[in-house]
Amino acid sequence: MGETVAPGNGAMARALAEAEAAGAAGEVPVGAVLVDAAGAIVAAAGNRVERDHDPTAHAEMIVLREGAARLGVKRLDGCDLYVSLEPCPMCAAAIGLAHIRRLYFAAFDPKGGGVEHGPRIFTQPTCHHRPDIYGGIAERAAATFLRRFFEARRNRQ
Amino acid sequence: MGETVAPGNGAMARALAEAEAAGAAGEVPVGAVLVDAAGAIVAAAGNRVERDHDPTAHAEMIVLREGAARLGVKRLDGCDLYVSLEPCPMCAAAIGLAHIRRLYFAAFDPKGGGVEHGPRIFTQPTCHHRPDIYGGIAERAAATFLRRFFEARRNRQ
Repeated sequence: MGETVAPGNGAMARALAEAEAAGAAGEVPVGAVLVDAAGAIVAAAGNRVERDHDPTAHAEMIVLREGAARLGVKRLDGCDLYVSLEPCPMCAAAIGLAHIRRLYFAAFDPKGGGVEHGPRIFTQPTCHHRPDIYGGIAERAAATFLRRFFEARRNRQ
Repeated sequence: MGETVAPGNGAMARALAEAEAAGAAGEVPVGAVLVDAAGAIVAAAGNRVERDHDPTAHAEMIVLREGAARLGVKRLDGCDLYVSLEPCPMCAAAIGLAHIRRLYFAAFDPKGGGVEHGPRIFTQPTCHHRPDIYGGIAERAAATFLRRFFEARRNRQ
């Protein structure tokens, strides 16, 4: 079974690397990369909830905030977001507020996701911006190390 | 018709004042106040989307982030949040992630709210923490100046 190859100049590979680094640092292993309309990486980060003492410091939120600040804009029209895991409802709603053009994510998250699961944020009639959505990109690679992370966490307990 | 009086040491009055200040500064006029279990104000802010070039800089997100950083915790168990307007889906989901104990909000927001409207975040089976929710606190005061703000904005256009 072949993997779907994402565009974006290796952005998904970078998101997976950020996720793995976050996991190694004791965070939930999720990574995100923001790419501008020309394909250049504007911001890349892993989760930092533990490090920053910030319940909102998911990888997606960090790159949306850093990207908008870096570009000096309040919305990221034309930019694409690559995430190693289906965004949660908070991040999905933030992606809508930020006017992200295309959302690529790797593993689906039936328990915590907010795009294809739970509130399915972009299907809500009160959602004012919907990106194009590509789920399951590089899913096997993402699922493998997510499983490793949760197995290791269980073994520590 | 009497107003419901909120507890929290004037926290809702402060949230309304933060909202009004945000509106005067050209932001969408929403304010939020985070109060600890003893009733002390931990953080207070108005929207800063324009000022900070940050699509996620809603008042609620700012006080959750500042409050958690100030207290050195990643979750705000025992803290209460006062907001001048029903939180949007992003903020509602963040309130869940932060484990806020009680959520008080003033005006209902049928177009953009995510608590009593839209995805109704806290009713989702994948939502892992639900605060006690008190909507419509000081609603008349909040509705009055929201109306003034949007009238003024229309008149400028």
